[in-house]
Amino acid sequence: MSKVIEQIEQTMQEMKSLAQIASQREGHFITSKVYECHLNCGRVIFREKLLKNGKDGSATIIVPFTKDNRILVVVEPRVFTRKTVGVGFPAGYIEEGEEAVMGAKRELLEETGYNAEEFIKLDEFYQDEGCSSALNRIFLALNCEKVKEQKLDRDEIVKYFECTLDEVLELERRGYIEGANSKLAIMKVKEYWKGR
Amino acid sequence: MSKVIEQIEQTMQEMKSLAQIASQREGHFITSKVYECHLNCGRVIFREKLLKNGKDGSATIIVPFTKDNRILVVVEPRVFTRKTVGVGFPAGYIEEGEEAVMGAKRELLEETGYNAEEFIKLDEFYQDEGCSSALNRIFLALNCEKVKEQKLDRDEIVKYFECTLDEVLELERRGYIEGANSKLAIMKVKEYWKGR
Repeated sequence: MSKVIEQIEQTMQEMKSLAQIASQREGHFITSKVYECHLNCGRVIFREKLLKNGKDGSATIIVPFTKDNRILVVVEPRVFTRKTVGVGFPAGYIEEGEEAVMGAKRELLEETGYNAEEFIKLDEFYQDEGCSSALNRIFLALNCEKVKEQKLDRDEIVKYFECTLDEVLELERRGYIEGANSKLAIMKVKEYWKGR
Repeated sequence: MSKVIEQIEQTMQEMKSLAQIASQREGHFITSKVYECHLNCGRVIFREKLLKNGKDGSATIIVPFTKDNRILVVVEPRVFTRKTVGVGFPAGYIEEGEEAVMGAKRELLEETGYNAEEFIKLDEFYQDEGCSSALNRIFLALNCEKVKEQKLDRDEIVKYFECTLDEVLELERRGYIEGANSKLAIMKVKEYWKGR
């Protein structure tokens, strides 16, 4: 096992949930709204729309390549998964009125302190098309360089590591990368490099 | 353009939302619950978990190949997307206590009336790992045959079509297949066939 994968495993150990207690706090992040939809064929159907923080919840996923061709991966608590910790790529919600690529730039900088010379959009997809408008965009970020420190929200915990592409693929094979966003991003990066 | 893609386009026209009206009905499908998570490193974080119908919302996605090597795709209203209609594969939530493969078998039968001789699990992934436990499974369904009629819920509208793999890839390229579930399923099917 490579040194960086060992470090990632160690970090996953540290971030593991030892206990999860159902809280009395009310959640305000996730809400929903019902719509009556009139279809062209004459039928009327009702559908419930998932909102996050009152918005669609569209996100960007960034696959950052450094100048020496390493990929930045992030480790974060993913408390509702089996491992309670996940490995993936920098990602985050696009803010109101923000262009997707600016969201990608901002999230990369916040989560890792890296800046990219170029962003290339690889694909976009609906995260949960049955009940949400969240349209996520995958960006490749090229020639990334560390320019400042991480700037995380109070409740946010993110550690990042530099991996080779082979190490990223190994992390997926071993089941450390389990999220739809990161898995789709890996596929699209593979397609992109193959096509060149 | 192939005949079946023309038929799919026509069906998409029929299912299009002409109007969507915010309803006074309260949504009961989407709810959330807050958890206080105690991490190994000593930190305590709060995370809100998305529930669908009070459950995790894990789903199966089925890529059905018929005996003559056609793939069944489904067209459904996806009212919260730009097109308001989506093309994808049969899919649905796994029921309480149901094994994933049984959910796949049931959903395929309900949405299309087809039965498969064999189900092969291709992959699994978290649909929205930041705020949900939904663990979706992708199945390849082989040697499918029509055995009965569709059996849809009252509010469900699903039409299915038999396509070649090339037509499925064309549907994705043209932006008709836009959901994370279906896009990941296509990738995994491509990998599967290449590996054989």
